[in-house]
Amino acid sequence: MTKAIHSMIRVFELDRSLDFYRNALELDVADRYDFDDFTLVYLRNDANDFELELTYNHNQAEPYSHGTGYGHLAVCVEDLDSSHERLLQQQLQPTDIKEFFREGALMARFFFIQDPDGYKIEFLQRHGRFQ
Amino acid sequence: MTKAIHSMIRVFELDRSLDFYRNALELDVADRYDFDDFTLVYLRNDANDFELELTYNHNQAEPYSHGTGYGHLAVCVEDLDSSHERLLQQQLQPTDIKEFFREGALMARFFFIQDPDGYKIEFLQRHGRFQ
Repeated sequence: MTKAIHSMIRVFELDRSLDFYRNALELDVADRYDFDDFTLVYLRNDANDFELELTYNHNQAEPYSHGTGYGHLAVCVEDLDSSHERLLQQQLQPTDIKEFFREGALMARFFFIQDPDGYKIEFLQRHGRFQ
Repeated sequence: MTKAIHSMIRVFELDRSLDFYRNALELDVADRYDFDDFTLVYLRNDANDFELELTYNHNQAEPYSHGTGYGHLAVCVEDLDSSHERLLQQQLQPTDIKEFFREGALMARFFFIQDPDGYKIEFLQRHGRFQ
């Protein structure tokens, strides 16, 4: 059986991405591999063994582009309001908290932030199917 | 602490994506929510509680585009050769198996496939840090 282990994104400035993912998502560097032309960094925390892989190409001349297909990485948190407040204080510009109802019941309570390269990250209140 | 729970991609034809992810990645539909304009499907298996969220917008007129930033979703498997053979037989066109060495030691043994929308998926032999 396949086991999902990471999602890979390319980042334009590694240090600002490491700062962002530590501050915003509480993800630490599990491993870092520096090669001649590129660096791979695996970020994780103790809540899930799924990792975010950052690929930093040393000679990348311009920021990466985003298509219309890829959406976001989602995380759940115990207390969405306190996460939102923390991100506001960190000047990371979270969107307003929204609630999404299905058949009259709350399905999701969430907001989004963007990482330094413009990748979207969804924060979801731990609730219902989002655990 | 944030817990990574899913990655979201937009897909142009839902049924072909469901077939692909079931056949190629052994991911089943954990939940499906049909709304007026869009459908959300959460795919998972028992190997990890991380999910792939498919967003199917009913009125999408053209295939989604891919930028240069987003890379891939990675999965690990117990037996890369048999997975490769299975995907070949399913006509899913896996790339050749490659080995990547670091400091003289095997770091990764892997290949890639593409899903029907062109998202890349890496298959990694369960080895070393890729567990």
